[in-house]
Amino acid sequence: MLAFECDYLEGAHEKILQRFLETNYEKVPGYGNDKYCESAKAKIKEACKCPEADVYFLTGGTQTNAVVIDAVLQKYEGVVAAQTGHVNVHEAGAIEYTGHKVLTVPAHQGKMQAAELKELLKAFWQDGSHEHMVFPGMVYISHPTEYGTLYSKKELQEIAGVCHEFEIPLYLDGARLGYGLMSEETDVTLSDIAEICDVFYIGGTKVGALCGEAVVFTKNNTPKHFITMVKQHGAMTAKGRLLGIQFDTLFTDNLYFEIGAHAIAMAKKLKEGFRERGYSFYLDSPTNQQFIILSDDEIEKLQEKVSFDRWDKIDENHQVVRFATSWATKEEDIDALMALLDESHPVL
Amino acid sequence: MLAFECDYLEGAHEKILQRFLETNYEKVPGYGNDKYCESAKAKIKEACKCPEADVYFLTGGTQTNAVVIDAVLQKYEGVVAAQTGHVNVHEAGAIEYTGHKVLTVPAHQGKMQAAELKELLKAFWQDGSHEHMVFPGMVYISHPTEYGTLYSKKELQEIAGVCHEFEIPLYLDGARLGYGLMSEETDVTLSDIAEICDVFYIGGTKVGALCGEAVVFTKNNTPKHFITMVKQHGAMTAKGRLLGIQFDTLFTDNLYFEIGAHAIAMAKKLKEGFRERGYSFYLDSPTNQQFIILSDDEIEKLQEKVSFDRWDKIDENHQVVRFATSWATKEEDIDALMALLDESHPVL
Amino acid sequence: MLAFECDYLEGAHEKILQRFLETNYEKVPGYGNDKYCESAKAKIKEACKCPEADVYFLTGGTQTNAVVIDAVLQKYEGVVAAQTGHVNVHEAGAIEYTGHKVLTVPAHQGKMQAAELKELLKAFWQDGSHEHMVFPGMVYISHPTEYGTLYSKKELQEIAGVCHEFEIPLYLDGARLGYGLMSEETDVTLSDIAEICDVFYIGGTKVGALCGEAVVFTKNNTPKHFITMVKQHGAMTAKGRLLGIQFDTLFTDNLYFEIGAHAIAMAKKLKEGFRERGYSFYLDSPTNQQFIILSDDEIEKLQEKVSFDRWDKIDENHQVVRFATSWATKEEDIDALMALLDESHPVL
Amino acid sequence: MLAFECDYLEGAHEKILQRFLETNYEKVPGYGNDKYCESAKAKIKEACKCPEADVYFLTGGTQTNAVVIDAVLQKYEGVVAAQTGHVNVHEAGAIEYTGHKVLTVPAHQGKMQAAELKELLKAFWQDGSHEHMVFPGMVYISHPTEYGTLYSKKELQEIAGVCHEFEIPLYLDGARLGYGLMSEETDVTLSDIAEICDVFYIGGTKVGALCGEAVVFTKNNTPKHFITMVKQHGAMTAKGRLLGIQFDTLFTDNLYFEIGAHAIAMAKKLKEGFRERGYSFYLDSPTNQQFIILSDDEIEKLQEKVSFDRWDKIDENHQVVRFATSWATKEEDIDALMALLDESHPVL
Repeated sequence: MLAFECDYLEGAHEKILQRFLETNYEKVPGYGNDKYCESAKAKIKEACKCPEADVYFLTGGTQTNAVVIDAVLQKYEGVVAAQTGHVNVHEAGAIEYTGHKVLTVPAHQGKMQAAELKELLKAFWQDGSHEHMVFPGMVYISHPTEYGTLYSKKELQEIAGVCHEFEIPLYLDGARLGYGLMSEETDVTLSDIAEICDVFYIGGTKVGALCGEAVVFTKNNTPKHFITMVKQHGAMTAKGRLLGIQFDTLFTDNLYFEIGAHAIAMAKKLKEGFRERGYSFYLDSPTNQQFIILSDDEIEKLQEKVSFDRWDKIDENHQVVRFATSWATKEEDIDALMALLDESHPVL
Repeated sequence: MLAFECDYLEGAHEKILQRFLETNYEKVPGYGNDKYCESAKAKIKEACKCPEADVYFLTGGTQTNAVVIDAVLQKYEGVVAAQTGHVNVHEAGAIEYTGHKVLTVPAHQGKMQAAELKELLKAFWQDGSHEHMVFPGMVYISHPTEYGTLYSKKELQEIAGVCHEFEIPLYLDGARLGYGLMSEETDVTLSDIAEICDVFYIGGTKVGALCGEAVVFTKNNTPKHFITMVKQHGAMTAKGRLLGIQFDTLFTDNLYFEIGAHAIAMAKKLKEGFRERGYSFYLDSPTNQQFIILSDDEIEKLQEKVSFDRWDKIDENHQVVRFATSWATKEEDIDALMALLDESHPVL
Repeated sequence: MLAFECDYLEGAHEKILQRFLETNYEKVPGYGNDKYCESAKAKIKEACKCPEADVYFLTGGTQTNAVVIDAVLQKYEGVVAAQTGHVNVHEAGAIEYTGHKVLTVPAHQGKMQAAELKELLKAFWQDGSHEHMVFPGMVYISHPTEYGTLYSKKELQEIAGVCHEFEIPLYLDGARLGYGLMSEETDVTLSDIAEICDVFYIGGTKVGALCGEAVVFTKNNTPKHFITMVKQHGAMTAKGRLLGIQFDTLFTDNLYFEIGAHAIAMAKKLKEGFRERGYSFYLDSPTNQQFIILSDDEIEKLQEKVSFDRWDKIDENHQVVRFATSWATKEEDIDALMALLDESHPVL
Repeated sequence: MLAFECDYLEGAHEKILQRFLETNYEKVPGYGNDKYCESAKAKIKEACKCPEADVYFLTGGTQTNAVVIDAVLQKYEGVVAAQTGHVNVHEAGAIEYTGHKVLTVPAHQGKMQAAELKELLKAFWQDGSHEHMVFPGMVYISHPTEYGTLYSKKELQEIAGVCHEFEIPLYLDGARLGYGLMSEETDVTLSDIAEICDVFYIGGTKVGALCGEAVVFTKNNTPKHFITMVKQHGAMTAKGRLLGIQFDTLFTDNLYFEIGAHAIAMAKKLKEGFRERGYSFYLDSPTNQQFIILSDDEIEKLQEKVSFDRWDKIDENHQVVRFATSWATKEEDIDALMALLDESHPVL
């Protein structure tokens, strides 16, 4: 059985497991105060070309979004996201659970537009009764988005420009950042992100780690007593080494980028394979998630030998499905998938 | 440098790391729906002799307490804990953050007394204005407590009896449960706990895992849509295998109990060593945490060569300090500690 | 200066003030346990033809929405509202503050459509990852809506039908209910509402009271310990008589309905006056709020002598403005307004 | 039937009702932006001799405590109160509902001691793991306390001194402030309170108003966007005049102080009556609440003709009961109570 339904099917990059073994009996302090966390932070700051950054490690994406957004927002503020943003749809209300509203702007293949963001912010401040409304207190974007799409550097700068104009921070959810950074179609580097965003996170769980996300505050802007808020959210890891060792390994010898590059190469091969065979794409994704339109019949047949993610109905007989590659995807699996497609002789 | 300050200084039991390596490239579903989680759950249910139990895996203790307590309580309820309970002191207000008050009864070496619990519950219901008060909606105990002490089976039954009388569930925080179960001075087994408590957790982080706690609902009483509340708290792990593999390993061939027994043996040796040398104990702990009274001078001298935890001032010149053993403590380190004590010729 | 900007410009109906004076020195118990609350509840149940109803009094609309929605929802649930619903826009995030998301369906002149509601609910339950999403746990509608519009009895029944199908309660915000019930264009009675909805509130603040809203649970479905949750929200009134006397008066001799009828008669006169003079309406409101399109010039001129509410820009030179009548509106003020319009010779 | 169980048995001072009548048909803006709120604020600032104060009106005590404490505290902070403080016992967890812990110091007849407060604050900051604990972020005291007792000016200054030392604000709950200020045994004036406290509230509900509490921020320290947080808590009154008119009346011609003085005179007469007849007091209250020890037999007999509040069991056969006077207590009722006592020939 082939499997392409997501990018967290396997364990961790073997260099990480190796490092666990090598360091296992060292006695180090808890709660992130160990030398591996220190080393990982230093390497991340260097990779971001942002020596003044503060770096923290949390275990998962929803947790990171809830902790960061809650810690940054004032009590009367909400966060602005694209309608399809992960925080607005697939986090079981984790943001609202912290008492904050998710305000939305339209999504364009998962992305927000600076102009529409500006419109929302302007409308808020011009509204005579805005004191009775939720103050837009920060902007959330995901990069890559939930649809695999990427912002261009110019788009990020425009969104950041609107944020500056209205004096609210820009937060980037990089759950799959490694795949975004290594896309052939991006002009955005890690240091661009550190420069443009006020806070962002570098996803580990979906990019080669067993778990873990690295939050980076870039402008000497870590909320006061952030550590206590992490604990209050139940998000502190007693054995901080679990996260420190993973990120230290990922940011040693460019491993994080190599992992990204591998998944992108696999995605390219997969995408070209589908394209050559005449399949339609729901949208043109430059990253490791590919959204393909299949007929119900094709889905039924394929599903016997390969797992993938059913995304959305598109008409009576067709659905969008997602194939994802990852750090662990093997070239031979793509070949096998293509062979399967050829067997099933799709006629669209 | 010797280190005894806590029981989470090292990584994980090597069998766990070995299992990570062996299973690393298997593709399994996320969010706890993998075969390792399934297998671990089955083994835990068997170890608890509680086939009807529901088992869930979370990453840390504070997180587990917050999620379980919030999921079980009605909105108008609070949780009753001993004054020194972890949820009342060292969780940065994580319980209150979920909107629930921690109601307290006096602590006796970390333990609550059934009679005092009953008094609080009776007083609440007899109070004419109890509708203006927080309803006591569940009882929280830790076992071992924060002071290393243990409830006897009779004490647990008495507390449970009070809970039944007032129709509220009993929740046991077993962050260090393995050490409690293997204490030579306990008459409480894992199946006793499953029988007596409505919900409890089996601590992994402090008993040989890199992270992870196993929540056990024992009476067909899992709160509806518990999984969604786990997600809402940011407590869901995408790669559920991280937790499943660890607990599957811990509950294979009695590893969890072996780990506990080793730490208890080491603690006994340490305790006897201090006792033979005439040291005073703050209290008589039957588990892996030992609380010893040292003079400030002794502390200063010892700290040069061994790390331990400074707990509390006891008078002008003396402090309570904690020495903890763990699954990873080596006998030779206890010997080295004793040699250090002999060197420093303590006169109390 | 004429004033039409809202329906809470004056104090209270004079019969209410009279009742305050008459009963002022009677000593009655606090917290809603007085005879006036009892009497008011009985009268409301009778007016609703719903003897099994439970009635509670709160002080304001946002408070009522937050308390009722939070008390009814499970922790993993959110409330579904029309995009323009008061709870989604003008309550400063009071619902999210209680930890619950507001899920939205499109608004059609302030109203939701049963079909679109059903679509959202169906989509939720069909979504393979709905356990990672906020469960739609109740439906919120306002009647009249924020745009003065009304649901027909059939529309309410259709929405209730969808709610029944998905087993979630229907909640109706009746901040201006009196004006809705007495509209000449409605076929919905108070007892219809009690029959169709699971919980609703009868607005007092905007319909002749100084403050106060009467919450009606119609199906023996008051959440357990609702009173304690009211207190927890800071929404309990020590001198419950303040609310009891007001609602007892409003529901004596049909006063509540008379008040409604008066405002509707005044609104009709106002509406006809504008229509006769050739003004355009933003929408056709059958209640006490009228939404008229004025040019910026007209607005500037009119504002010197009459206050009204600026609602929204509609194009470069025109805005939607709101004129509201109330229980206290005097016919002569409408006449004076028409005279002002005639003076200003509007040419649209 | 005589009634002394609390100080909110009657409606409002008749001058307030008179003012409602006189102003009823004036059209004024909502949400506290009316001239009566403005006038009331100016008078309160003058009465406090604190021209830089910011004044806000809310409807009840629990609401005021929850809104003020939540608005002032940072997310990682809790409020310190005496064990018996209203926020810790009788507010149904309203503070915890906002996510904040109530930290407690011992209560001495309802009062906290500066030394014990300092001890708690010092212990927190000296604790090596204080980042895992709730930060004490403000201090709450009630004056008069729940036991009718009063702080001396010196005691208030000492508590404020500790607050300054640890840089946290002091908040005074003045639900019954009028009775405290007019006690014959106090040396604390309203301007002292404004000078010593960072924020406090002047209780209306229990001191002659139908509802309403006036919050006073004294040091240019109103939390940013406080109004929005008031709305978010469901605590904003649409017809702000309801509160403005009441406080404007209470602070015209010293009415608030006259009301206080009357209740104190009545309490003195009641206290002396009990004392002359040989009754014991639970404590020596200098304000309008008197706590007397009665035998169960006496209680049973008395209760047939007079209502009072049963407070607490003191031994097998005796209870503490509370008799409260208020702005509305009549001298003849005290006489009648004394006659009842004489009839029942108490033998203690």
